[in-house]
Amino acid sequence: MSFEPPLKNKAEQDETSELRPKFNADGLIAAVAQDADTGEILMLAWMNVEALSATLKTGRGTYWSRSRQSLWVKGETSGHVQTVESVQIDCDQDAVVLKVRQSGGACHTGRKSCFYRTIDPETLQLRHE
Amino acid sequence: MSFEPPLKNKAEQDETSELRPKFNADGLIAAVAQDADTGEILMLAWMNVEALSATLKTGRGTYWSRSRQSLWVKGETSGHVQTVESVQIDCDQDAVVLKVRQSGGACHTGRKSCFYRTIDPETLQLRHE
Repeated sequence: MSFEPPLKNKAEQDETSELRPKFNADGLIAAVAQDADTGEILMLAWMNVEALSATLKTGRGTYWSRSRQSLWVKGETSGHVQTVESVQIDCDQDAVVLKVRQSGGACHTGRKSCFYRTIDPETLQLRHE
Repeated sequence: MSFEPPLKNKAEQDETSELRPKFNADGLIAAVAQDADTGEILMLAWMNVEALSATLKTGRGTYWSRSRQSLWVKGETSGHVQTVESVQIDCDQDAVVLKVRQSGGACHTGRKSCFYRTIDPETLQLRHE
């Protein structure tokens, strides 16, 4: 699977019905996984061309691991797979939202979501949920 | 406002109650704005130290504009401000979720959310919502 480059005219990129993802200098777009039922945001990760292609083709959340520099089928080792219900892309096509059904926890710490700490704006301490 | 550096031990960074954001090579972390009432994901943008500090201090969604290379108080010109209800940070502290009340549309196109197109996995065409 290959993709056309982004349109140079920004307004056209915003309105096109063609998938023209805008990968960054590292060849990545941001991907937010959201629980399809509850709307809870589970994680934020990264996709290269191969990860986006694989996600669309297989319906399994697939990312690019920046630390391991390799394709990462979510749940491949943990069993905590993501079944993708739909993929939305934003105006300039440099970020996607995946609505998923998450088996087990999305976070490597075992928690359902990676966003388990809230910043107290007064003390700047983190409150665990 | 200044922040301590991330902890080198990854497991400690995951569990600390101290805010130790992990800015990337460009000095940025990813920020996802989510409607506090409906859970709808509105936009994905970027924050540097100043933007994160200002967001926590003022309760107004404030970002770093990569295109303009300047601090960007959301709604400063459009009037479409974001009142921040809470800020969650993820396990390795390189991404935040802002639960917000959004005045007007979050997207520069006038739409409520930037994620107004769904990718058809068969045709790779985008369906506008």
